[in-house]
Amino acid sequence: MSNRVAVYRKEHFNAAHRLHNPDWDEATNDRVFGKCNNPNYHGHNYELVLKVTGEPDAVTGYVMDMKVLSDIVQEHVIERFDHKNLNEDTVEFKNLNPTAENIAIVIYKILRKIIEPEFDLQVRLYETERNFVDYPAN
Amino acid sequence: MSNRVAVYRKEHFNAAHRLHNPDWDEATNDRVFGKCNNPNYHGHNYELVLKVTGEPDAVTGYVMDMKVLSDIVQEHVIERFDHKNLNEDTVEFKNLNPTAENIAIVIYKILRKIIEPEFDLQVRLYETERNFVDYPAN
Amino acid sequence: MSNRVAVYRKEHFNAAHRLHNPDWDEATNDRVFGKCNNPNYHGHNYELVLKVTGEPDAVTGYVMDMKVLSDIVQEHVIERFDHKNLNEDTVEFKNLNPTAENIAIVIYKILRKIIEPEFDLQVRLYETERNFVDYPAN
Amino acid sequence: MSNRVAVYRKEHFNAAHRLHNPDWDEATNDRVFGKCNNPNYHGHNYELVLKVTGEPDAVTGYVMDMKVLSDIVQEHVIERFDHKNLNEDTVEFKNLNPTAENIAIVIYKILRKIIEPEFDLQVRLYETERNFVDYPAN
Amino acid sequence: MSNRVAVYRKEHFNAAHRLHNPDWDEATNDRVFGKCNNPNYHGHNYELVLKVTGEPDAVTGYVMDMKVLSDIVQEHVIERFDHKNLNEDTVEFKNLNPTAENIAIVIYKILRKIIEPEFDLQVRLYETERNFVDYPAN
Amino acid sequence: MSNRVAVYRKEHFNAAHRLHNPDWDEATNDRVFGKCNNPNYHGHNYELVLKVTGEPDAVTGYVMDMKVLSDIVQEHVIERFDHKNLNEDTVEFKNLNPTAENIAIVIYKILRKIIEPEFDLQVRLYETERNFVDYPAN
Repeated sequence: MSNRVAVYRKEHFNAAHRLHNPDWDEATNDRVFGKCNNPNYHGHNYELVLKVTGEPDAVTGYVMDMKVLSDIVQEHVIERFDHKNLNEDTVEFKNLNPTAENIAIVIYKILRKIIEPEFDLQVRLYETERNFVDYPAN
Repeated sequence: MSNRVAVYRKEHFNAAHRLHNPDWDEATNDRVFGKCNNPNYHGHNYELVLKVTGEPDAVTGYVMDMKVLSDIVQEHVIERFDHKNLNEDTVEFKNLNPTAENIAIVIYKILRKIIEPEFDLQVRLYETERNFVDYPAN
Repeated sequence: MSNRVAVYRKEHFNAAHRLHNPDWDEATNDRVFGKCNNPNYHGHNYELVLKVTGEPDAVTGYVMDMKVLSDIVQEHVIERFDHKNLNEDTVEFKNLNPTAENIAIVIYKILRKIIEPEFDLQVRLYETERNFVDYPAN
Repeated sequence: MSNRVAVYRKEHFNAAHRLHNPDWDEATNDRVFGKCNNPNYHGHNYELVLKVTGEPDAVTGYVMDMKVLSDIVQEHVIERFDHKNLNEDTVEFKNLNPTAENIAIVIYKILRKIIEPEFDLQVRLYETERNFVDYPAN
Repeated sequence: MSNRVAVYRKEHFNAAHRLHNPDWDEATNDRVFGKCNNPNYHGHNYELVLKVTGEPDAVTGYVMDMKVLSDIVQEHVIERFDHKNLNEDTVEFKNLNPTAENIAIVIYKILRKIIEPEFDLQVRLYETERNFVDYPAN
Repeated sequence: MSNRVAVYRKEHFNAAHRLHNPDWDEATNDRVFGKCNNPNYHGHNYELVLKVTGEPDAVTGYVMDMKVLSDIVQEHVIERFDHKNLNEDTVEFKNLNPTAENIAIVIYKILRKIIEPEFDLQVRLYETERNFVDYPAN
């Protein structure tokens, strides 16, 4: 068995969003997205959990310094999305529906370029306490 | 000592909002409200806890049937604010800044007219897990 | 201002119960108590929070040793109600409807005789995360 | 790497149960199941988390509409078990010990027939905050 | 009824401590403080909730800007106690037993000098999820 | 598909620790470990979740009696680390930096010798609500 450990760091951001497909008429948008299609947006306290998997360093005992991971997430994710309207204020969701699934994929792609490739990465995003997603799935 | 019991019921709603004073210039709004002044809004998962205080009914053992309380809150508060933009979609916050303090006061005033006067009422509103308010204060 | 501090200790127990009034016919019981009237019972993970208020001892810095408080609650409350059917297995609820309100009052009366009178006592009982009660009410 | 995302939906139900093997004498039942063998039952607030894994739809951004998933779980699981005595009121546990393990397997089998086969399914069941199970195991 | 609202801000810090009375022999310390008397210390994740009560400002809708309150607590409390040994690294607990009760009183006295007198102040301190205190008591 | 179920049991302990490498000078220790290098230690409420995977027994419906698992963890882990200074009071961390990663590996190795080999074992350790680890990683 390998010595790999998964380390997790939880961060959060608050944002407004709207689920909407501009290629559909309003009736279809309402049928598919329901209250989430409200044209003036609604919002969430998003809880974000990053999972980084690797071997602990023999000297420090760290897979990765959680302070460093937290700083990376703050700079590249939280600064970008916190207290923002995902549809209006971000380039990532100008043409991509900001479902929890898509937000998790976007965050994964941002961090995957920064977290060194020797580490596996997974993103969990809580839209509410009762609705959450993992990307990539186990 | 009286026999009064407080019963609590927790509900939730998701909404977008913006903190902004239209009488101020942008620099003042930014200084006072910071990121919460984002013109395109941000949002929260609001957790709402209603506290109703009274004597339990000698026959049922209930201060108030929590199912009845939940239905009242659903009809008069959740339907009104859930998946809404508080600034744009509600009459209550057209001219009132939707701070947690003001949202709690508004919800209290809505429910105070409906909950029978023999009961005391208090509203707790969580804007995030780390920021929350009570109205009226103990 | 006095130097009084409130100390809280959280315990839990699991129990079955049924809400039912034997003086009513089934239709009335169903109308008033709904699913909680199921004749074969349902159950809960009850979370119990004791609040004891007094002045910290000048030497120990304790209002009351939380270990002592926990032992008292274990002996007098948890042993009595944990993994029990409140209606069938306890004398307290043989003729008293085991609503959250009544369970809190019963627990208060049990502990009030044991906790020394120099301390104030309050019982909070969570029937679920969303339904809970305080006795006596503030 | 595939584009698969896991989406999770949390629901809850309250139920009474008893752990008991009718082929054993009382002493053996007491030794094996302890307080959980109480003949008059005890109960729990069960928290249920469904995990559905698949590729997000390119148009909606959903793996599966969480509202649809929630409705399926309400209709097929919550209606069946909420406010019930698992041993007495359900066919599933007439001859099957309602341990957390078995309840999770039963819920999985119910939902596996309904959730379309392109999706993977996993059930997590919390019997208490401190005891929980996954089926199938990762 | 006044228009007073209570606003709450939650912060946290991690610290080591030991409960010990230097005027007692070891047997007495062990009897009174048990495992908490370990000479090499143990530690906790302390959760701190500040409650500030006042009237919301008519213009901003704030009782007090939570960002300002958070900054005050960070500067005067968290900087002082986070990742510290309360007995060894702080002047406050050189000669005062760092029970939850005493830590809450110390934090209250620090903040009471800084929070303007028009506001009421209360400190809640969680030593663990199951043991917590309020000062001053309601 | 096999019939394997994962069962989880949550326990907790409170401990003091310090992150430090005796082969480094203080400047290097401070740069790498920051506040966690405080020479007088700090501490945490550690939450420990054991995951045991196997097939439920056909007669009992248990993968493993959670009471038995809890007793094993109490005896072999909690007794050893609760209310201790990990660096000073334990042999395991005399020469091993007590990072969350290393604590999880140590606990895994202790329990792996005791939990029967037919069961898979995984350890999750929460150092804080926001920092946690799994060993072995999935």
